[in-house]
Amino acid sequence: MQSLHHIPTSDDIKETHHAISKMVHRTPVMTCSSIDRMVGAQIYFKCENFQKVGAFKMRGASNAALRLSKTQANKGLATHSSGNHAQAVALSAHLLGVPAYIVMPDTSPAIKKAATEGYGATITLCKNTLEARETTLEKVVEKTGATFIHPYNDYNVIAGQATTAKELIEDIDDLNIIMSPVGGGGLMSGTALSTRYFAPNAKIYGAEPKIVDDAYRSFKAGNIQYNTSIDTIADGLRTNLGEKTFEIIHRELEDILTVTEEAIIQAMRIIWERMKIIIEPSSAVPLAAVLANPSIFSGKRIGIILTGGNVDLGKLPF
Amino acid sequence: MQSLHHIPTSDDIKETHHAISKMVHRTPVMTCSSIDRMVGAQIYFKCENFQKVGAFKMRGASNAALRLSKTQANKGLATHSSGNHAQAVALSAHLLGVPAYIVMPDTSPAIKKAATEGYGATITLCKNTLEARETTLEKVVEKTGATFIHPYNDYNVIAGQATTAKELIEDIDDLNIIMSPVGGGGLMSGTALSTRYFAPNAKIYGAEPKIVDDAYRSFKAGNIQYNTSIDTIADGLRTNLGEKTFEIIHRELEDILTVTEEAIIQAMRIIWERMKIIIEPSSAVPLAAVLANPSIFSGKRIGIILTGGNVDLGKLPF
Repeated sequence: MQSLHHIPTSDDIKETHHAISKMVHRTPVMTCSSIDRMVGAQIYFKCENFQKVGAFKMRGASNAALRLSKTQANKGLATHSSGNHAQAVALSAHLLGVPAYIVMPDTSPAIKKAATEGYGATITLCKNTLEARETTLEKVVEKTGATFIHPYNDYNVIAGQATTAKELIEDIDDLNIIMSPVGGGGLMSGTALSTRYFAPNAKIYGAEPKIVDDAYRSFKAGNIQYNTSIDTIADGLRTNLGEKTFEIIHRELEDILTVTEEAIIQAMRIIWERMKIIIEPSSAVPLAAVLANPSIFSGKRIGIILTGGNVDLGKLPF
Repeated sequence: MQSLHHIPTSDDIKETHHAISKMVHRTPVMTCSSIDRMVGAQIYFKCENFQKVGAFKMRGASNAALRLSKTQANKGLATHSSGNHAQAVALSAHLLGVPAYIVMPDTSPAIKKAATEGYGATITLCKNTLEARETTLEKVVEKTGATFIHPYNDYNVIAGQATTAKELIEDIDDLNIIMSPVGGGGLMSGTALSTRYFAPNAKIYGAEPKIVDDAYRSFKAGNIQYNTSIDTIADGLRTNLGEKTFEIIHRELEDILTVTEEAIIQAMRIIWERMKIIIEPSSAVPLAAVLANPSIFSGKRIGIILTGGNVDLGKLPF
């Protein structure tokens, strides 16, 4: 397998799915009759909270790692992140037996550092600014020869995240709508591609917190817009789109719906209480959008990707 | 099907399983590699937190309801409970189209009353003493002709709860040990019977909070002992054994292990954080016992029943 330098094709996604199948879980699809009654629709939740490292990020990182040459891979994988992507890169390197170098802000919780180190990664701390992260990462890459795995603006990562919707479509027939939240757009663009290829009749919706509505504004404007605030509880969705993810999202999506923080917390609580599963706030954003827009979703068969389950139990919003 | 008046046989449990299959979910069995590494064993978790009403209680209540004559059933089902059994009786009645009468202490949380009323049950409030519950229930039964469904000391209920371990044994081969928590003993005695019938080589362990160790003391003494305190976080396990459940438990169990409150909370947190599922404190008691007794469990294939997932998210212990 070679590194992808074009928008992933149907065959690229199939090849990716086959390749990463030994490094990721095939996660279950769950339903909940009380939520279905509440929304007047049938919702199929793809549970990436049960994925390795607790989030879909493992799919993209493992694909990016598998597509490196042996020489490249042996020098290691690198990234800057304090979240799920860091752990996904660390575990991918661990499974392939190569080094991982993770740049993390010095404000990262000790538990996240410990989890990443637990996979054998080397952590370099830096100040908590984007500039500090990027310059520190550059130095690490220069010194080690490791390959930077971008968290979303990378066709290998997009193809990996696309396998989530591919599995959902394989498991559930005749979906009318497929949804994911939008952060940097890796999952959203992968979801859009798999839907277009494998469920061409389904409409594709994104869902985003109002506070970080860069993707919504980018989608409407036709060019990339940026967030001025990142103060949302959905900490996985604070990132702006990249040019690769934006191109796919702008071309394929039906619409992007934005939701309030209150609606996100309410939808998160509904999923915790009714489905008895732990999801992170980002995962609740699509259900919040469904609850707020009955005219779009009523009576439909809807696939929703629950992105992950990594939350700090000491800091819950309810 | 007739009401059972003897210790359920293998055929009784098979018949029960077939009969209730339209009223309950076949719940999944989940595994977690990081917990397996932590305990040095392979654990298979039977997820009754995903059962209807959020707990295994639906199995016993539905079997008891299905074994009533048509004339009896039409007069309704009755019980006193503020917890999972109340909702299980209410939903069983709802699914069969017959009335349900639930006696609840007037101190019950509004959310529990609302959930039970949501299934169409008639609620009668009483003072929060066992005596008030029992006399109020007697009056309700006298007035309506409804049948009292005991939460555990009833062979129909025991046969229903036994289907949980039966499914676990069907899904997972060669278990060395099967465990459940012990409260009133309905699930524990049903688990013991199914293990004896369908996995005769497996050992059967119960797990119980030290603070309410009536089952442990009863098991050792050979006659029913009672709790003097009920101050455990595992609110599903505060009940004493009944004579029907005690007889089976005393005959079939290898041992009952007791655990501290701290160990319960720690095990609950491990399951929430690692498995991304919501379980109630009672469900964490067997894992707490495994963690505290490596000499018994190390290297074994262990089946654990996670009893339910009904927790108050506003009152978590972490």
